[in-house]
Amino acid sequence: MTDITEQVKAAKAASVEMSTLTTAVKNKALSNMMKVLDSERAKVLRSNGEDVEAVRDSIPQPMLKRMLLNDAKIDEMIKGIESVISLKDPVGETMETTVLDDDLTLYKVSCPIGVIGVVFESRPDVVPQIMSLCIKSGNCVAFKGGREAIRTIRCLFDTLRGAAAEAGVPKDAFVLLESREDVDEILSLDGYIDLLIPRGSNQFVRHVMENTNIPVLGHAAGICTVFVDSECDRNKVVPLVVDSKAQYPAVCNAAENLLIDSSVAEELLPVIVGGLRSAGVEVRGDERVASIVKDVVPAKEEDWETEYGDLIISTKVVDSLKEAIDFINIHGSHHTDAIITENMAKAATFANMVDSADVMVNASTRFADGFRYGKGAEVGISTNKIHARGPMGMEGLMIYKYVLIGSGQVVKDYVGPQAKPFKHERTGSECPLR
Amino acid sequence: MTDITEQVKAAKAASVEMSTLTTAVKNKALSNMMKVLDSERAKVLRSNGEDVEAVRDSIPQPMLKRMLLNDAKIDEMIKGIESVISLKDPVGETMETTVLDDDLTLYKVSCPIGVIGVVFESRPDVVPQIMSLCIKSGNCVAFKGGREAIRTIRCLFDTLRGAAAEAGVPKDAFVLLESREDVDEILSLDGYIDLLIPRGSNQFVRHVMENTNIPVLGHAAGICTVFVDSECDRNKVVPLVVDSKAQYPAVCNAAENLLIDSSVAEELLPVIVGGLRSAGVEVRGDERVASIVKDVVPAKEEDWETEYGDLIISTKVVDSLKEAIDFINIHGSHHTDAIITENMAKAATFANMVDSADVMVNASTRFADGFRYGKGAEVGISTNKIHARGPMGMEGLMIYKYVLIGSGQVVKDYVGPQAKPFKHERTGSECPLR
Repeated sequence: MTDITEQVKAAKAASVEMSTLTTAVKNKALSNMMKVLDSERAKVLRSNGEDVEAVRDSIPQPMLKRMLLNDAKIDEMIKGIESVISLKDPVGETMETTVLDDDLTLYKVSCPIGVIGVVFESRPDVVPQIMSLCIKSGNCVAFKGGREAIRTIRCLFDTLRGAAAEAGVPKDAFVLLESREDVDEILSLDGYIDLLIPRGSNQFVRHVMENTNIPVLGHAAGICTVFVDSECDRNKVVPLVVDSKAQYPAVCNAAENLLIDSSVAEELLPVIVGGLRSAGVEVRGDERVASIVKDVVPAKEEDWETEYGDLIISTKVVDSLKEAIDFINIHGSHHTDAIITENMAKAATFANMVDSADVMVNASTRFADGFRYGKGAEVGISTNKIHARGPMGMEGLMIYKYVLIGSGQVVKDYVGPQAKPFKHERTGSECPLR
Repeated sequence: MTDITEQVKAAKAASVEMSTLTTAVKNKALSNMMKVLDSERAKVLRSNGEDVEAVRDSIPQPMLKRMLLNDAKIDEMIKGIESVISLKDPVGETMETTVLDDDLTLYKVSCPIGVIGVVFESRPDVVPQIMSLCIKSGNCVAFKGGREAIRTIRCLFDTLRGAAAEAGVPKDAFVLLESREDVDEILSLDGYIDLLIPRGSNQFVRHVMENTNIPVLGHAAGICTVFVDSECDRNKVVPLVVDSKAQYPAVCNAAENLLIDSSVAEELLPVIVGGLRSAGVEVRGDERVASIVKDVVPAKEEDWETEYGDLIISTKVVDSLKEAIDFINIHGSHHTDAIITENMAKAATFANMVDSADVMVNASTRFADGFRYGKGAEVGISTNKIHARGPMGMEGLMIYKYVLIGSGQVVKDYVGPQAKPFKHERTGSECPLR
């Protein structure tokens, strides 16, 4: 067995103890982590400086920007951990109680998933964020971070794990894997890792999804569309389209496509395109758009499925709500899509028929985010259609088990012609086994 | 594109309409299905007779028994569909409402998963069971059934799909794939199938799990253990052990291993083994068991991880609760495990630390079942640790989407130094878009 497998196996073994930590121990660990991050900030920034120095000329600017730490970013990390302390302990909640018969009661009880594999690229702030959420939810973590930021990641990891251990969190619960080969080994450890959360480029996430039997939560692409309906409020259109596209174009919930109903296209397209161009956006379009607005870059077929991550948008005229919905379900990535309309029946059709994690009605696509949704902290955004969908907070790290408490009952008595009947009464009582 | 991919793609397209069917249409379809199953029972039994005739000498007896239909089994199918009519429509429920700001409210709304792939071996009753659950939950289905029972499956499929279509269920929503090659093609359709539910032998389920990127819900093995604690009630032990092992040994929730605390082993093992042997069970054991009871077949290392599916049990003496828990977490299949004890602190430790879908306290492992748990109908039993765990009913076929209804809000106003604060108030109001 390799060293990596050994470490992950140890995390799996620690997951049993991890799942039974008290809220007091977990919150103490989190407050230790806040303190150490503050007292050791010089050390963290020094490691980060070394990382930046080493790769400054060899990696793209946006990546460099994401890995760069400063005092403000460390303050944000500390605030992030503090917000997790205030979250309710999600372990051991009785979710459902069913009385099967006298003295035979079934409890559905929340519990941690076990070992989470977090594979990420350059952002070092993933370490405090995921480690704090996993401590509170009783999960173990195997981290595999990007090599560009490895000194920073290692420093954060060691510092935070040490602080958590002082409060009684098992040290084996957290593993940091460093080498490039480790990614493929992680993907093969389906006996020990229960869930993978990849965070990074689309290509990277797709690689993870295609090369593992472990369940993966995340999204490989964010191709989001805004549809301007014929019955839209004129005052809302330009601000919503511009915000969805240009407020922060590099992220997954920024819009890449704009659809407009043909009956209002001649009236509204010039205003919308004007607004977009004022915000620095390059506008591409189909022939009908080009016949209404000047200097539109012709949109090719692949434009409808391209995540620009940049100040570019592809626009198209459609003849009906149905055409817009079909376009989104075919070309979109089931992430976040918006309709601008005052007709609530049309909004309902759109909300019910668009097969996406987040559907916005008269609101910017950029609201699709764990913090804005009020989750406190975000684990990631999922376009999966099982377990967790859309922005997910700590609930994405939880599952449940069934606990049946009886007094000697056997199934033999509940089958056959003389079968005792089940009661199947729902009650609100809590599982007594904590 | 092959014919199969075309059909599954058509089901994907139909899934949008399927998700918006009214409860009235769905219940009418189900009642049509009940009627046609009654009126066409002669035709179904004739197809089944042909299947049985064709394979009678070439397949094992238990498989033949599972595929054999008679009037009583058709009555059960009809009753099964009736029970689905009485289930609450699970689509469009508002699960959570958060006011983000004035006139900006986030709804978490339940919706169907989309297209479910059901790959099963010989049991034809899977067709009415899954088709009815999927109609009620608004999901489409691609079935791939075993070849032994293909005439029966085809007859049931055509008859039931026709009856559902008369009520307004789209015909494309249901696909039946027949050839052996179809299995591998289904496994590759991750763009169109959202969830796979395999039902069949462990080997078959494992094949499905290892050869697809589609999420799979199910279980490949059912290695269940009963632990007899030192503080057990003597009157409960023998009935619980015998029922867990012998009440129906062929199924996944039957016990394969028995652990007993060393402090009561000498007193209780002879009685337990006597009870098991009276029920026709072959008892295997480790050396400590063999030193207490005569004629015990020596248990080998692989016995602790073998699903006998037969009247055989492996027994072992352990020195502590902790040793029992470790044994179960290492050798078991995370399905169903039981403790027999009157000490509720020990029961709590066992329930919290055993990492299984179902934990039984003084109750038979055989209770782990959708019907007995009061779910009405069972989709399957999952040992996954995401989405659905343990016996799953219709809730295993549901996911949610977030619907954010605003009045023109843009993210720009909620970021930066002048950021408007979010309210994040939970309310009980329902999503108005239905």
